[in-house]
Amino acid sequence: MWNPLGIVGVITAFNFPCAVLGWNACIALVCGNSVVWKGAPTTPLVTIAMTKIIAGVLEKNNLPGAIFTAFCGGAQIGEAIARDPRIHLVSFTGSSQVGLRVQKIVNERFGKCLLELSGNNAILVMDDADIELAVRSVLFAAVGSAGQRCTTCRRLLLHESVYQKMLDRLVDVYRQVKVGNPLEKGILCGPLHTRTSRVNFIQGIERIKSEGGKIVTGGNVIESEGNFVQPTIVEISPGADVVKEELFAPVLYVMKFQSLKEAIEINNSVPQGLSSSIFTRRPEIIFKWIGPQGSDCGIVNVNIPTNGAEIGGAFGGEKATGGGREAGSDSWKQYMRRSTCTVNYGSELPLAQGINFC
Amino acid sequence: MWNPLGIVGVITAFNFPCAVLGWNACIALVCGNSVVWKGAPTTPLVTIAMTKIIAGVLEKNNLPGAIFTAFCGGAQIGEAIARDPRIHLVSFTGSSQVGLRVQKIVNERFGKCLLELSGNNAILVMDDADIELAVRSVLFAAVGSAGQRCTTCRRLLLHESVYQKMLDRLVDVYRQVKVGNPLEKGILCGPLHTRTSRVNFIQGIERIKSEGGKIVTGGNVIESEGNFVQPTIVEISPGADVVKEELFAPVLYVMKFQSLKEAIEINNSVPQGLSSSIFTRRPEIIFKWIGPQGSDCGIVNVNIPTNGAEIGGAFGGEKATGGGREAGSDSWKQYMRRSTCTVNYGSELPLAQGINFC
Amino acid sequence: MWNPLGIVGVITAFNFPCAVLGWNACIALVCGNSVVWKGAPTTPLVTIAMTKIIAGVLEKNNLPGAIFTAFCGGAQIGEAIARDPRIHLVSFTGSSQVGLRVQKIVNERFGKCLLELSGNNAILVMDDADIELAVRSVLFAAVGSAGQRCTTCRRLLLHESVYQKMLDRLVDVYRQVKVGNPLEKGILCGPLHTRTSRVNFIQGIERIKSEGGKIVTGGNVIESEGNFVQPTIVEISPGADVVKEELFAPVLYVMKFQSLKEAIEINNSVPQGLSSSIFTRRPEIIFKWIGPQGSDCGIVNVNIPTNGAEIGGAFGGEKATGGGREAGSDSWKQYMRRSTCTVNYGSELPLAQGINFC
Amino acid sequence: MWNPLGIVGVITAFNFPCAVLGWNACIALVCGNSVVWKGAPTTPLVTIAMTKIIAGVLEKNNLPGAIFTAFCGGAQIGEAIARDPRIHLVSFTGSSQVGLRVQKIVNERFGKCLLELSGNNAILVMDDADIELAVRSVLFAAVGSAGQRCTTCRRLLLHESVYQKMLDRLVDVYRQVKVGNPLEKGILCGPLHTRTSRVNFIQGIERIKSEGGKIVTGGNVIESEGNFVQPTIVEISPGADVVKEELFAPVLYVMKFQSLKEAIEINNSVPQGLSSSIFTRRPEIIFKWIGPQGSDCGIVNVNIPTNGAEIGGAFGGEKATGGGREAGSDSWKQYMRRSTCTVNYGSELPLAQGINFC
Repeated sequence: MWNPLGIVGVITAFNFPCAVLGWNACIALVCGNSVVWKGAPTTPLVTIAMTKIIAGVLEKNNLPGAIFTAFCGGAQIGEAIARDPRIHLVSFTGSSQVGLRVQKIVNERFGKCLLELSGNNAILVMDDADIELAVRSVLFAAVGSAGQRCTTCRRLLLHESVYQKMLDRLVDVYRQVKVGNPLEKGILCGPLHTRTSRVNFIQGIERIKSEGGKIVTGGNVIESEGNFVQPTIVEISPGADVVKEELFAPVLYVMKFQSLKEAIEINNSVPQGLSSSIFTRRPEIIFKWIGPQGSDCGIVNVNIPTNGAEIGGAFGGEKATGGGREAGSDSWKQYMRRSTCTVNYGSELPLAQGINFC
Repeated sequence: MWNPLGIVGVITAFNFPCAVLGWNACIALVCGNSVVWKGAPTTPLVTIAMTKIIAGVLEKNNLPGAIFTAFCGGAQIGEAIARDPRIHLVSFTGSSQVGLRVQKIVNERFGKCLLELSGNNAILVMDDADIELAVRSVLFAAVGSAGQRCTTCRRLLLHESVYQKMLDRLVDVYRQVKVGNPLEKGILCGPLHTRTSRVNFIQGIERIKSEGGKIVTGGNVIESEGNFVQPTIVEISPGADVVKEELFAPVLYVMKFQSLKEAIEINNSVPQGLSSSIFTRRPEIIFKWIGPQGSDCGIVNVNIPTNGAEIGGAFGGEKATGGGREAGSDSWKQYMRRSTCTVNYGSELPLAQGINFC
Repeated sequence: MWNPLGIVGVITAFNFPCAVLGWNACIALVCGNSVVWKGAPTTPLVTIAMTKIIAGVLEKNNLPGAIFTAFCGGAQIGEAIARDPRIHLVSFTGSSQVGLRVQKIVNERFGKCLLELSGNNAILVMDDADIELAVRSVLFAAVGSAGQRCTTCRRLLLHESVYQKMLDRLVDVYRQVKVGNPLEKGILCGPLHTRTSRVNFIQGIERIKSEGGKIVTGGNVIESEGNFVQPTIVEISPGADVVKEELFAPVLYVMKFQSLKEAIEINNSVPQGLSSSIFTRRPEIIFKWIGPQGSDCGIVNVNIPTNGAEIGGAFGGEKATGGGREAGSDSWKQYMRRSTCTVNYGSELPLAQGINFC
Repeated sequence: MWNPLGIVGVITAFNFPCAVLGWNACIALVCGNSVVWKGAPTTPLVTIAMTKIIAGVLEKNNLPGAIFTAFCGGAQIGEAIARDPRIHLVSFTGSSQVGLRVQKIVNERFGKCLLELSGNNAILVMDDADIELAVRSVLFAAVGSAGQRCTTCRRLLLHESVYQKMLDRLVDVYRQVKVGNPLEKGILCGPLHTRTSRVNFIQGIERIKSEGGKIVTGGNVIESEGNFVQPTIVEISPGADVVKEELFAPVLYVMKFQSLKEAIEINNSVPQGLSSSIFTRRPEIIFKWIGPQGSDCGIVNVNIPTNGAEIGGAFGGEKATGGGREAGSDSWKQYMRRSTCTVNYGSELPLAQGINFC
């Protein structure tokens, strides 16, 4: 028997203020649960708008409004959700650091967590890759949403034979990218989310330089009222500490490799394990990449960017990404309590495993 | 794609020194993993014997011996397994307290846990129950293995209309139980596992008395070289603190209830959520019991004892029992890493969700 | 890999002129097929209306209109669909006799069939049944839609201890049933579908009498412009030939039994195997009924009527009912072609089953 | 609920006198059925030996011997199985012609069939194929078991750019094949099964010639006591009638094509649809081949032969191959009767689909 859990808590991040709620709350509600939602503290109007839309649907269908509740607020609300023993499952989307903290609190009261945490996603370009396809994919994956997706491409691993060609083409298209109001036509790259994000970008660039990274293009903030920064390409060693972390901005680390084995090792060498993609036409590489000794990520693509997941598939990642899968054919099981039932409808006692009584 | 995790750690308890290893290691190995096993510190000979049997099988089939490794040892070995980032999954069977500690360590390194922790299992006897069936079931579930199964019945909830009759019958059969060497024919109840267990029993009885519990039968250790104790029945209030905990001995707490609703509330009022059973013939009660407002346990039985699980079903429990399920049709998924793969075999870029590039 | 079949033919009956199309065509289309539909020759306006609705949806979504085509017409259209090798699957709803013929034609060209054929559905009332619940269920199941559902209750098997009581109650409520225009409030029983149906009813009643059946209530047509007939109850032996056939009218055969075993034998003694239901409160009977030695039907209910299937469950029946299941979690598989694919991406030949080459 | 069917009939062919029984009977028995087996009339000793082995297992496990029964005999036994209404499922392996006949008989009594009929399997070699891999595969698939497997490669479709090279290499290796006692080391090609098979081979070669086929190598019987024939390669047009049929002997039809589209059309142009394979390294061809517009067979391979199926996958084929799948993860469903059960455990009547009663 699968029964509902009761109340499910959903804590979402600023960058997908509707979608992540949607794919959590819809399954949770269909499974018979009530939902308590905390949106990001910086997106309260979206939280309110979504809540009104949902309230309208509930009213129209004569469902009690209490099955969906939303909060606007910060860490203290999140912590209250994490601590509350009435909330059996807490689905959290955010940084690895905060996610780990939420998990610890929830586990102490023997609740369950569903975690979608940081990514640090690489695209690998093999010697036989379709370079134009790869350039378009990297640009879209590294600059789109100003690098503020969990599936943003942050690391570009290039085979030595295509390294310079690919890098030159990228610099060429990066210089054509228009930064500005993303609601205007032709603007690919919008602002960072907050002033803090802008500060993080500046500090990140400093740290990159101090660890030997070379700015190939970009690297500066754009002085304006908004939090605009230049899409940035950095040449750096895979061994640098800064590449192990998620800088939530349009900064792409470019690295060189000589063999598939080396490229996979670099791909897997960061703490996070969300998304990854390889560009190649060789079946033996494709199957190696998606197999037991390939990418250790939850999303393993070929010839498409790291982002743009089809929601039909299981979405989420391994290691510091938290291990959760918020979609896919069996994701509903996480929102339910499973009980193994045996009904003895006879008048004798069928003791299991051949044990005789008395 | 489902790929193996790599190394799976299995930490088992003294009371099922082979079975729990078996149902973890077999699936883990079939899924392509290597296994590192730590048996209980008090059952080293079983650990060694099992390891030799497995080594024989591996040799016979030309499989590398390294895919199965066992340790004899205590908490420091367990902690080393919990801390080792090469061990992607740690399957732990033991107390809630230690399980929580293991989980915390494993989570900090973003590893996965599969927990089978304490139980505190109740049998509910309704007014229409088959009393003889219930008596046999309770005796088997509460006294078998000297009360040292995770699925042992520790709480007996009796409807007021059958309370005295059921209690009298139980006292009658308890007094016939022979305690001694369980390898001898006719001996149902063997010893406790260690001298410490015996001390725990003595202290438990003291605490029971101090919280208002009334010893109906048993309650004493049996003076001998072994760690034998009397199978014990206690009348006590569901509100007593001691009934919220798992005393790993043949001590049965008997409580009275007036309605199904009350009985389910008592059943669900303890921190643990492993097994539970109701005795009744009424379909409306059976379906209520296994439904969303029934037992909150992982194992929900009707007219059979709390123990003796069929291994074909998902085994494990909720809340302080840890949430793990070590068997059942989809348990293999826990021993594998899932990746969602998209392969673009064309020369165009199918960007998801209708997004157009440039 | 699951690939679409290509074109799926759907042939539906007059009594569910939309629903059966819906649950076939929707899955077929979602699975990537085109659909060719033949509605019943007596319901052309429904066929046209449905086709227009579907065309509107296709247009709105820029889907080619050709993926859904409908025909108004009779047996010659049906036969053309059955014979056409381009139509890989023919889903047919109708009588056992015609279904068998369609299947033969389709099989000869190695096409596939999905058959929903005649029912001859029984309700069993045990000695402990809730009589009022049973009366309401039988009335609804035997008289609703004027007995023209495939799931209509046609046989009522009564335990001897409740036989007279149940029969008396039924006669009482049957006499209150108003026959007339079912669009008017308070009218439960509408007309038969055609003049031919009315003739079949008259001939059926004659045959019932000639085989020893006793008309308890009803048994006559109602003289009017419409094809109205009286809801009819007949006492008859389970051995009569006429009870083995489906008379598509509100005629209920009542029979007496002494034991569950006998009742199940009678239930299973007809060629058809669509729906069945038992009224009892005893778990041992419920589980016997739904188990390997219980009802041999595709739908096996307890304490609800034979009709009114939840479309979430697999719908269809065994034996002369054709064996098809048009709904349920895995019904989509029938609308697809399954291929087992092995891709060797290496340069060596992994011959199966340990065979060495040369 | 899934309940056993009762008795399952299994009719097997001479070429896999154990395996086909095995994968039918094992699932059928595990699902709770009894099995009635008819082996091939020409392999009675295998039938008897297998039956004795099974009887031994049943005895050892205290299972009634009656759950497995075998017959030695010919068509009259097969027909008796097909006609017997007590045998709910007939699993038949053999020719399309006989399978169609069995199906017709079984359907008339509303029984179920599981058909594994003729194959006519093609290997496609693209311009970029690994020629040596392809040569080894074709030799193994066309000559192994003297061409008497249902998955034997009977048609070789060569891209014009590799046509002559591939043909020359094949002729070269065909000439090295030793024909004789297959139990002797180094003998790849054994005899045909019967004198009749040898006559069919002679007549087949005559017909090939009359339809314009050109014998490239082989084409003759080998005069001896056994039924040995030469492994034969024929150049022929895909339009010839003879290539639409299954000649159960080591005769390979070689054809030329210019495009993938043309090759797939030829592959799909025969009545049978069991197995197929393509040799290429290009992902766009691999995914086209296994997709909706690729091979229409049940087994769709890449860079391996047509034969040598892994029994873990669904085995069987489309069109004149009969549509059955005798293995794979859900094949057990075919050996069971599914019932959709609704239990009303309340005292109210939850009529489905919002219908109100009275």
